Amino acid sequence: MPLFRRAAVIGIGLIGSSLARAMRRGRLVAHIAGSDRSARVRDAARDLGFLDSVHADPIDAVAGADLVVLCTPVGALAELGAAIGPHLAPGAVLSDVGSVKQAVIRDLGPHVPEGVHFVPAHPVAGTEHSGPEAGFAELFDGRWCILTPPPGTDPEAVAKVAALWRGCGSQIEEMDAAHHDAVLAITSHLPHLIAYTIVGTATDLEEATQREVIKFSAGGFRDFTRIAASDPVMWRDVFLNNREAVLEMLGRFTEDLTALQRAIRWGEGDKLEELFTRTRAIRRGIIEAKQA
Amino acid sequence: MPLFRRAAVIGIGLIGSSLARAMRRGRLVAHIAGSDRSARVRDAARDLGFLDSVHADPIDAVAGADLVVLCTPVGALAELGAAIGPHLAPGAVLSDVGSVKQAVIRDLGPHVPEGVHFVPAHPVAGTEHSGPEAGFAELFDGRWCILTPPPGTDPEAVAKVAALWRGCGSQIEEMDAAHHDAVLAITSHLPHLIAYTIVGTATDLEEATQREVIKFSAGGFRDFTRIAASDPVMWRDVFLNNREAVLEMLGRFTEDLTALQRAIRWGEGDKLEELFTRTRAIRRGIIEAKQA
Repeated sequence: MPLFRRAAVIGIGLIGSSLARAMRRGRLVAHIAGSDRSARVRDAARDLGFLDSVHADPIDAVAGADLVVLCTPVGALAELGAAIGPHLAPGAVLSDVGSVKQAVIRDLGPHVPEGVHFVPAHPVAGTEHSGPEAGFAELFDGRWCILTPPPGTDPEAVAKVAALWRGCGSQIEEMDAAHHDAVLAITSHLPHLIAYTIVGTATDLEEATQREVIKFSAGGFRDFTRIAASDPVMWRDVFLNNREAVLEMLGRFTEDLTALQRAIRWGEGDKLEELFTRTRAIRRGIIEAKQA
Repeated sequence: MPLFRRAAVIGIGLIGSSLARAMRRGRLVAHIAGSDRSARVRDAARDLGFLDSVHADPIDAVAGADLVVLCTPVGALAELGAAIGPHLAPGAVLSDVGSVKQAVIRDLGPHVPEGVHFVPAHPVAGTEHSGPEAGFAELFDGRWCILTPPPGTDPEAVAKVAALWRGCGSQIEEMDAAHHDAVLAITSHLPHLIAYTIVGTATDLEEATQREVIKFSAGGFRDFTRIAASDPVMWRDVFLNNREAVLEMLGRFTEDLTALQRAIRWGEGDKLEELFTRTRAIRRGIIEAKQA
């Protein structure tokens, strides 16, 4: 028996389309409705066939749904919540996949009607590709999905969202939204910010050098370009909506970088070697945790 | 007919052992001698069997060699050059694989005897693993090898080193050592410095958070930990020996990062989106250049 009768996936890019595919793979939902404001994306979704129904208006997608998952950039959630809020069915579960959680609760919370259960979620998975063509059912296999239900959320609704993501291959962790935002600031947001920055620095070099940067990128740079190819609007919204935590981690990073800069300038090889040795341990931890 | 009668590979870690394997795969050298100052590494090399002879003293390895390739961290080259210089055979080709080239020419040049041809080289390839067990014959396939022969170097010796690396699967580029060091500062040295820094920043967080950093590293951080697991001594020597170019690129990067920091603080979403969109082009260039 499926977990939900009708799921509405609003926003069918990389994450939304992967979620729809994973729900279908796991036979978790009887009917999967999808909606996207882009006609091109809706056409692609129809061609790819991972939805049972495709809707231009999110209100049509959420009608009668007992699960609604918002998969748009987080900056679009306030307006989207205001539009669909009045049309959510009593007893329905509302969730999202946003990479920040305090701002999502701030923006969506006021639009959740009495009797609808709001369970914010963040599947920590992705690729540098965007759009419904880039999605695949295995994206969440073995990855963590973090749930940040506000205090007082119906435990049964939380359990159902957890079961959904387990059915999509994920492991579940529950934490406070503020803590989520602090942890993700260092594990995801700051790495993206730095990758975007260094690739930007390279694009400002004179053109001849830029061609060589591309040619000789195998020395480390190419890995940054992969991260810096991620969706621009999604990431703009992440930084605008996790400002405090990102600025705090960025401050620590900049201090550490300045200390290294000084060590290079003054030829303090022992300081460099000490750091470069220390950082190997965390890699081993990641390999042992099967997240490599 | 092989390109060289006897090659001596001094330093048989990831790069040296991969070079030996690739030379054997391509039947480029009749006899491959290897030397490493670590007894453990010499034993491993004997067990793995990719060398024709293993020597504790580099002087024994270079005796009678018509090709000598130094594959140690660049900080060890001055002393090594002084030790082997008097024992190099007349007409032999001396090369290296160092990630910096001006410092290598500065440190090795004075020890190259009359009649020996010094052709500095840098295969732009590697992995985060170290040691002879980590090497493999395919490491250089499709990657660039940059030659930086000082003015006046015998063209025949340069051609032989180019043929050697082509035989190992590489494409060849020739450039001035100073230009090499500037290009690699942005494509390789700065990415490593930044990766080491952010992983270091994470290891300074409280222990509970550190465990979560490992757990949720799939959001971008894990890619940095891979780069930051590279050999500590090799990288210490790179930064100590390409100081000016690294500090120059680091200065540009820091300016750009500060501008982004300000954009985040003041909520300037358009500036963020503009950069995040611009950086996608360079990724496409890398994919088109088959270096992704």
